[in-house]
Amino acid sequence: MADIEHLQIVKASAADVYFALTTAKGLSEVWTNELTVHELVGAVNEFQFGSDDLTKMQIVELIPGERIEWLCVESDPEWVGTSLSFELEEKKGKTYVTFRQTNWAKVTDFYRSCNYNWAMFLYSLKLYCEEGQGMPFQRRKF
Amino acid sequence: MADIEHLQIVKASAADVYFALTTAKGLSEVWTNELTVHELVGAVNEFQFGSDDLTKMQIVELIPGERIEWLCVESDPEWVGTSLSFELEEKKGKTYVTFRQTNWAKVTDFYRSCNYNWAMFLYSLKLYCEEGQGMPFQRRKF
Repeated sequence: MADIEHLQIVKASAADVYFALTTAKGLSEVWTNELTVHELVGAVNEFQFGSDDLTKMQIVELIPGERIEWLCVESDPEWVGTSLSFELEEKKGKTYVTFRQTNWAKVTDFYRSCNYNWAMFLYSLKLYCEEGQGMPFQRRKF
Repeated sequence: MADIEHLQIVKASAADVYFALTTAKGLSEVWTNELTVHELVGAVNEFQFGSDDLTKMQIVELIPGERIEWLCVESDPEWVGTSLSFELEEKKGKTYVTFRQTNWAKVTDFYRSCNYNWAMFLYSLKLYCEEGQGMPFQRRKF
């Protein structure tokens, strides 16, 4: 088994980071603007990346300002069954974001690529929370 | 033990990416502009990040256009003894960069932070190779 784990600092409140990670407005700036987002445990969020690439995340936990957890229920086979969590801790006006995608079967080239791309997602989160504009899929240069 | 592994695509030749990762000019744009860089196996490169933070990397392998390996010999205690490698593979005008920092004692908050920051380094590498200007330590917003 393998996990992806990142820690990043965002100069914004935990409430603002939580908003960015749980609302259609926030996630459309941070990740992809083709999405359906719910704010309810048990519901399934949908994220589209181009015409073929659909990812569905079931919401497992929502603790405002503190913690978000998703279970990937549809996507690339290497993602299905992985757990994704964002833990937020605000200290002196900054929010420490610990991101994890756990339960990968093994370290593959797709794992390596996703590890890089989750950091790009977190960088987009930082840009959106600090400067008002993120770098979602549609605006990234690949 | 724990490893950091990323895979990134740069729209540039492997020769250009190799230049960026092995020369003072390249590494000053990609990582930090306070540095001493050699292009000789066995030599020790020095990278400074602000007044207190010095990292020394002994060059273990240099295969032009293909592979670079460093051994960290001085830095944060969690880094000393880790191996760092960049493997380059050019396909259809793009270079696939596999980066690894192996031999971490365990997954800590510093590991998580470095995992994020190595991706920022790779993003800086991409910006430099594709657009001519990277995002080294001195120009990054933390």
